[in-house]
Amino acid sequence: MTPKRLQIIALPGVPEVAPGDDVARIVATALAAEGETLASGDVIVIAQKIVSKAEGRYVELDSVTPSARARALAAEVDKDPRLVEVILSESAEVLRARKGLLIVVHRLGFVVANAGVDASNLALGDGRNRVLLLPEDPDGTCARLRAAFKEIFGLEAGVIVCDSVGRAWRSGTVGIALGAAGLPSVVDLRGRPDRSGRPLKVTWVGLADGIAAAASLVLGEADEGTPVALVRGYEAFARTLNAAASIRPKTQDLFR
Amino acid sequence: MTPKRLQIIALPGVPEVAPGDDVARIVATALAAEGETLASGDVIVIAQKIVSKAEGRYVELDSVTPSARARALAAEVDKDPRLVEVILSESAEVLRARKGLLIVVHRLGFVVANAGVDASNLALGDGRNRVLLLPEDPDGTCARLRAAFKEIFGLEAGVIVCDSVGRAWRSGTVGIALGAAGLPSVVDLRGRPDRSGRPLKVTWVGLADGIAAAASLVLGEADEGTPVALVRGYEAFARTLNAAASIRPKTQDLFR
Repeated sequence: MTPKRLQIIALPGVPEVAPGDDVARIVATALAAEGETLASGDVIVIAQKIVSKAEGRYVELDSVTPSARARALAAEVDKDPRLVEVILSESAEVLRARKGLLIVVHRLGFVVANAGVDASNLALGDGRNRVLLLPEDPDGTCARLRAAFKEIFGLEAGVIVCDSVGRAWRSGTVGIALGAAGLPSVVDLRGRPDRSGRPLKVTWVGLADGIAAAASLVLGEADEGTPVALVRGYEAFARTLNAAASIRPKTQDLFR
Repeated sequence: MTPKRLQIIALPGVPEVAPGDDVARIVATALAAEGETLASGDVIVIAQKIVSKAEGRYVELDSVTPSARARALAAEVDKDPRLVEVILSESAEVLRARKGLLIVVHRLGFVVANAGVDASNLALGDGRNRVLLLPEDPDGTCARLRAAFKEIFGLEAGVIVCDSVGRAWRSGTVGIALGAAGLPSVVDLRGRPDRSGRPLKVTWVGLADGIAAAASLVLGEADEGTPVALVRGYEAFARTLNAAASIRPKTQDLFR
């Protein structure tokens, strides 16, 4: 299961993505431009932002009427009430509110600042106040992309939609898997022996999050414009488990 | 700064490590056995466990007399009172206590389950109840290893001591950097433009944690016995910042 060598390869040259664009074709073109093709066990890691753009997950702030709750919360955290309304519409629960920051449980279950609603990196140039939501259903997106890659390349690849997120306790963002298909997001090591034959105590490994963190090392955050990476070196994954499995159940989470 | 290609290479064949062993020599031997040498920009990632073993960070539980506080807490979480005493001796603060689990602020500042005190993977075979603490000063260890590698190989490498940890909100462990030298643990992107020229909002990237997470993909958790990895593909790091910088200051942490 554990690979001995991995390659993490950025696929540059991806053009600006617009609503309706075919992300699978974009990835295939980027692979070809890099002189690569898909191999068995490869994992394609795609930045959330281009998936959201392709899915047209834009909201025009001018079209948003903030609720009383959004207005009150906006005053508390010093944000645009319309943006807070959008954040609340993407949230199941607000965990923490502080100036400039809302930590929420996203409707999809993961804990994330500002519900992942993003106003940066949007190539606008037209003066509109447009924000970008997270993908509608990242696990579903990954499953569809996996099927599309099978169609294009004739083999089963892993697919992850990743995002860079802040964390409790640690400074600095790292990549995590918002969506995954074709690999086990968490790997159950229960019953595996350690070197001295004792059963392991650490029993669940966050594989999809680890791969997303690795891929994020080559994706960059700023103006590099490299939203797709290829992680190569896994054998084919025998089991699969989508990224919803990476969300710690509330009953097992001591920090909500 | 952002590399385009990274290689993550496990260095197998590391023997069981004993107190006093020279970790730099062990790594050099493992590199040579894999047909590799150190190159500029390389990062050597070393599992916490072999560093702790080399530093002799063992505690014999039979030698521990639990305090009243440890006995009370042990009853609450259903653990050996001697183990709880050891955990408390490594902790600045207990954040959460639940059956089988103590989440603490380690004396070094990071938040970790059971203060990182580990009873698994110890090749004992002699029936003694011995546990292993985290390294005394992981940043210091990394700085010393970096100096030793410079001596051996004549160049400046990055060094990370990593551990697999559980997280708030997410299921499954990922690797983080307990110690680092020769690279910036967190990277400040403030002022860098995004693709449309706006200043970036996500301004700090957890580089050392990302590299540790990537390396952990090839280290494995169980009986593979691969405690060292080479991460290759960075240019030399212009700035450095040790892993203490990866600890979110309590004043900026909404989840303690």
